[in-house]
Amino acid sequence: MTRPFDELTKALGKPVMLRLKGDRTIRGVLASFDVHLNIILENAEELANGQEQTIKEKYPRLMVRGDNIIFVAL
Amino acid sequence: MTRPFDELTKALGKPVMLRLKGDRTIRGVLASFDVHLNIILENAEELANGQEQTIKEKYPRLMVRGDNIIFVAL
Amino acid sequence: MTRPFDELTKALGKPVMLRLKGDRTIRGVLASFDVHLNIILENAEELANGQEQTIKEKYPRLMVRGDNIIFVAL
Amino acid sequence: MTRPFDELTKALGKPVMLRLKGDRTIRGVLASFDVHLNIILENAEELANGQEQTIKEKYPRLMVRGDNIIFVAL
Amino acid sequence: MTRPFDELTKALGKPVMLRLKGDRTIRGVLASFDVHLNIILENAEELANGQEQTIKEKYPRLMVRGDNIIFVAL
Amino acid sequence: MTRPFDELTKALGKPVMLRLKGDRTIRGVLASFDVHLNIILENAEELANGQEQTIKEKYPRLMVRGDNIIFVAL
Amino acid sequence: MTRPFDELTKALGKPVMLRLKGDRTIRGVLASFDVHLNIILENAEELANGQEQTIKEKYPRLMVRGDNIIFVAL
Repeated sequence: MTRPFDELTKALGKPVMLRLKGDRTIRGVLASFDVHLNIILENAEELANGQEQTIKEKYPRLMVRGDNIIFVAL
Repeated sequence: MTRPFDELTKALGKPVMLRLKGDRTIRGVLASFDVHLNIILENAEELANGQEQTIKEKYPRLMVRGDNIIFVAL
Repeated sequence: MTRPFDELTKALGKPVMLRLKGDRTIRGVLASFDVHLNIILENAEELANGQEQTIKEKYPRLMVRGDNIIFVAL
Repeated sequence: MTRPFDELTKALGKPVMLRLKGDRTIRGVLASFDVHLNIILENAEELANGQEQTIKEKYPRLMVRGDNIIFVAL
Repeated sequence: MTRPFDELTKALGKPVMLRLKGDRTIRGVLASFDVHLNIILENAEELANGQEQTIKEKYPRLMVRGDNIIFVAL
Repeated sequence: MTRPFDELTKALGKPVMLRLKGDRTIRGVLASFDVHLNIILENAEELANGQEQTIKEKYPRLMVRGDNIIFVAL
Repeated sequence: MTRPFDELTKALGKPVMLRLKGDRTIRGVLASFDVHLNIILENAEELANGQEQTIKEKYPRLMVRGDNIIFVAL
């Protein structure tokens, strides 16, 4: 059996979407991660709550602390 | 006695339903998991709150962070 | 002195009731557990909030993540 | 100096009162505990919020997960 | 440099005031503590929220679980 | 590179301001700390929410549990 | 693969923006950090909620406890 983190490794360099606690959604290119699920996204976009077509803010590089993550769409 | 994670191993490749904190419900095929209950679902569907017949969003592959999970229906 | 987990061992195969954070109540037969209090219930029933006579949903097999549990009625 | 858990040992077999997060109050006879403050109560009574004279529910044997406990009245 | 727990040791046998999460305030004599900041208070008094002159309840001996504590006034 | 705790060491004996979860603000002289960011403040003042000019309460010596701290202004 | 903390090392001495739980936003120069994501910011500015052009408060040096951080914009 592969493990969940193996799927993250395959997604390096590809666009992912993070759903965070407190109803935040962030999209970007998965640049790196660690065992705590801390994640670096490049060309990240924070989306407006409940309107996922609307970009609220853009960040060239973002480090997301893993404990905020609900799920990562690969 | 078997242990709870033995039941997850038996469910690999089968459809499961995850109830998450914050009233989220996600269904999909259990592709892998680890000791923190991080889970990869394939062909995942996020269901609308309180209307479990309504699919809110679809994801080909989802990594759910284990600490968000209330229960897994096997 | 016996320890709390000894009482769970005695309850294997018997009906228990779990009270979870966020006012959820689940009943079922205790099939297995581990040191984190992750629990497998069989023939599980989720009860409606505040109306414990009303069954909201049924699940043949449920894995409950231990950190959601307030108490287990044995 | 004695340690807090020494006081719990002295209270074994005696009635105690648990105040839990989320304004729950449970009384019962202290049957066992472990280092995580998981506790088995016998002849337990859950009291109604804010009306501590009113018994809401009775349980012959209850395992309370330690992380829900605010304090134990000995 | 002394460490925070050294100050608790000096306060043994003396009155302290605990401010707990969820706006609870408890006063009593510091009888013992451990590294998790679990604390035994003797002759404890729980004070009414926002009216610290009013005693809501009295307990001869109380074990407070450390993770509920915001601060201890020594 | 110095580390965050080196800055706390430099601040020993000096006034600091702690912003705590739940919108509490406490000022005082930093007397000691440990690796969990448990902190002893001397001549501490708790400030009223949203009115940081108003002192709500004074404490000669306060032990703050580290997990409540959002930030320390040095 | 580089790891998330490598990106923080590259950002030392540069301006960063921290989004904290509870809708706080703090900007400043990244002076140091540790494995818990505890961070020292210099010339820090706390921004008003939802009005990120408005500076609410300024601090010459701030230690932010890592567990409050949602993300760091590098």
